[in-house]
Amino acid sequence: MSVFEAQETVALSIDEVFALSRRVLTGAGLSVPHAEAVARVITAGERDECASHGLYRLPGCVMTIRSGKMSLDAEPVITDASPALVRADARHAYSLLAFERAAPLLAQKAKEVGVAALVINNCFHFSALWPEIEQLTGMGVAALAMTPSHSWVAPAGGKRGLLGTNPIAFGWPRPGPHPYVFDFATSAIARGDMALHDIAGKPIPEGWGVDAEGRPTTNARAALDGAMLTFGGHKGSALSTMIELMAGPLIGDLTSRESMAFDDGAKAAPMHGELILAFDPDLMGGGDAAVNAARAEALFAAFADQDARLPSHRRYEARARSLADGVRTPKVLYDQIVALGF
Amino acid sequence: MSVFEAQETVALSIDEVFALSRRVLTGAGLSVPHAEAVARVITAGERDECASHGLYRLPGCVMTIRSGKMSLDAEPVITDASPALVRADARHAYSLLAFERAAPLLAQKAKEVGVAALVINNCFHFSALWPEIEQLTGMGVAALAMTPSHSWVAPAGGKRGLLGTNPIAFGWPRPGPHPYVFDFATSAIARGDMALHDIAGKPIPEGWGVDAEGRPTTNARAALDGAMLTFGGHKGSALSTMIELMAGPLIGDLTSRESMAFDDGAKAAPMHGELILAFDPDLMGGGDAAVNAARAEALFAAFADQDARLPSHRRYEARARSLADGVRTPKVLYDQIVALGF
Repeated sequence: MSVFEAQETVALSIDEVFALSRRVLTGAGLSVPHAEAVARVITAGERDECASHGLYRLPGCVMTIRSGKMSLDAEPVITDASPALVRADARHAYSLLAFERAAPLLAQKAKEVGVAALVINNCFHFSALWPEIEQLTGMGVAALAMTPSHSWVAPAGGKRGLLGTNPIAFGWPRPGPHPYVFDFATSAIARGDMALHDIAGKPIPEGWGVDAEGRPTTNARAALDGAMLTFGGHKGSALSTMIELMAGPLIGDLTSRESMAFDDGAKAAPMHGELILAFDPDLMGGGDAAVNAARAEALFAAFADQDARLPSHRRYEARARSLADGVRTPKVLYDQIVALGF
Repeated sequence: MSVFEAQETVALSIDEVFALSRRVLTGAGLSVPHAEAVARVITAGERDECASHGLYRLPGCVMTIRSGKMSLDAEPVITDASPALVRADARHAYSLLAFERAAPLLAQKAKEVGVAALVINNCFHFSALWPEIEQLTGMGVAALAMTPSHSWVAPAGGKRGLLGTNPIAFGWPRPGPHPYVFDFATSAIARGDMALHDIAGKPIPEGWGVDAEGRPTTNARAALDGAMLTFGGHKGSALSTMIELMAGPLIGDLTSRESMAFDDGAKAAPMHGELILAFDPDLMGGGDAAVNAARAEALFAAFADQDARLPSHRRYEARARSLADGVRTPKVLYDQIVALGF
């Protein structure tokens, strides 16, 4: 993140990032299985230089833990609900352990019947979706994941927060270590980026937000007090609404507005559900797996032919650097984490 | 469409629209089952004042029929492939009959296992996706549909056509006659709109297309000769790529580039596959159907509270008008259809 550029940094190995995360999370009270599931994703974020999903998240985790709303040790309950449906009740703990425990059954069902769904309920959402997507592509299935969040985003033509930042992520398994993966918020911009503009006193581009009266604004503070907007105008708004419905009412869980009401100002992580779909290319493709894989690879090669980069290429480049050399974390963040006292 | 405003029109009842469509399509050589499936969708488009998906399509249908590439009478072969998967081989005929024949089994499977997929292969694609989505919401399931098209659209950061206009449509069943439905192309604009700007000599907004050298252009002709762009920048491009993968290699069918190569300049409808997913709110929601339906209705009510319209509201308003009063079709189009000689 550019705000960290030219700052003093601390060199850490990947193992040290994991150990630090695990220590803070268990110290704050998370059970070991939950702490390790979260620490794995924080480590992946730091490794891929997704600073906003790396160690930067630890102070927020501690705030969520201290909010008293989240279970620190609930064992997720996994239910084999149908030949195509897995339910994982996170029982008001973080989502990641529920995902890790249920993902193999999801992939197995997709391979048995072609398409399958994993519904995670009652979870405090943590992290970007791409670490989950990569676990599934690693099992040989394509995957699509979505969640609501908190109702910070106005629908197209509206003026008040109603939709979440509602991320959607998709992955396609490829030969070699790097699947095709994208993961984006359906808001025009991440809420954290809006906050960084506010802190820096910088204007935001038109189309990011509206003020408390629903008027377009380039003032980050006014937009944070008003509402964010979706990317892509009415199309992005429609997509965000689909995510709201599919990862909310469809799966028997909260909408972004209900999640925000549940939080009631505690500023904990959003509590809601998550929907993950998995697809088996062999069964869905009618059995001609090699032809279909080659067809997808031809598509990716055509991106390269015209110098269009695939999503996640920056993450994969960062990953290679970090695996070789470790990471450099801003000293101010490192000190803040150490000062948490765990 | 604004180009038709203030033109001389012909008044037709809904039944007359269907009868005219059926007559032209059977006259051109389509079998009765295929002609009626296509005529039903043309009638729905005309009824909903989606002029570009109504009678306007008939001359293009005749061109596709005359291209010699499409089967005019193939009976689709429906296969019950798994508890969650239906395959429909359209056998190089239009897609709609395959969809109509397979849709009840898709909905049944969704109700049995929660989520199910319909793969349509080897079809000449016809029409917007919303008529199919509305058939499925009418059976009580939520639905998500997508198809590739022809490779007119450059990916983000690219300069040549590679992706299709790749539409995506979603529907959620609601009490009353009107489901929540959206249906949009992932290109910044429909190719037909680009062509209308060219015909009118009007500049196109920035972000719609690039010229043959990959440079941004506001010249519609230059963009038609170059490449269109996706909506929503790199996010729209990622979504379009997902559609390309899921409704192409995943289901054992052609990408947009392969479909365009298959057409080989014949200007027939694109020939490829289609993926439709269906979700049962009862089973996916864990059994609390009334609570979840109310949760969705509360979301829709919150749109209305802030004067944000839901997608499809214009279609539903037009539908009410047309069902009461019939439609008015531009005389120039009506005469063109009659001149086809069927």
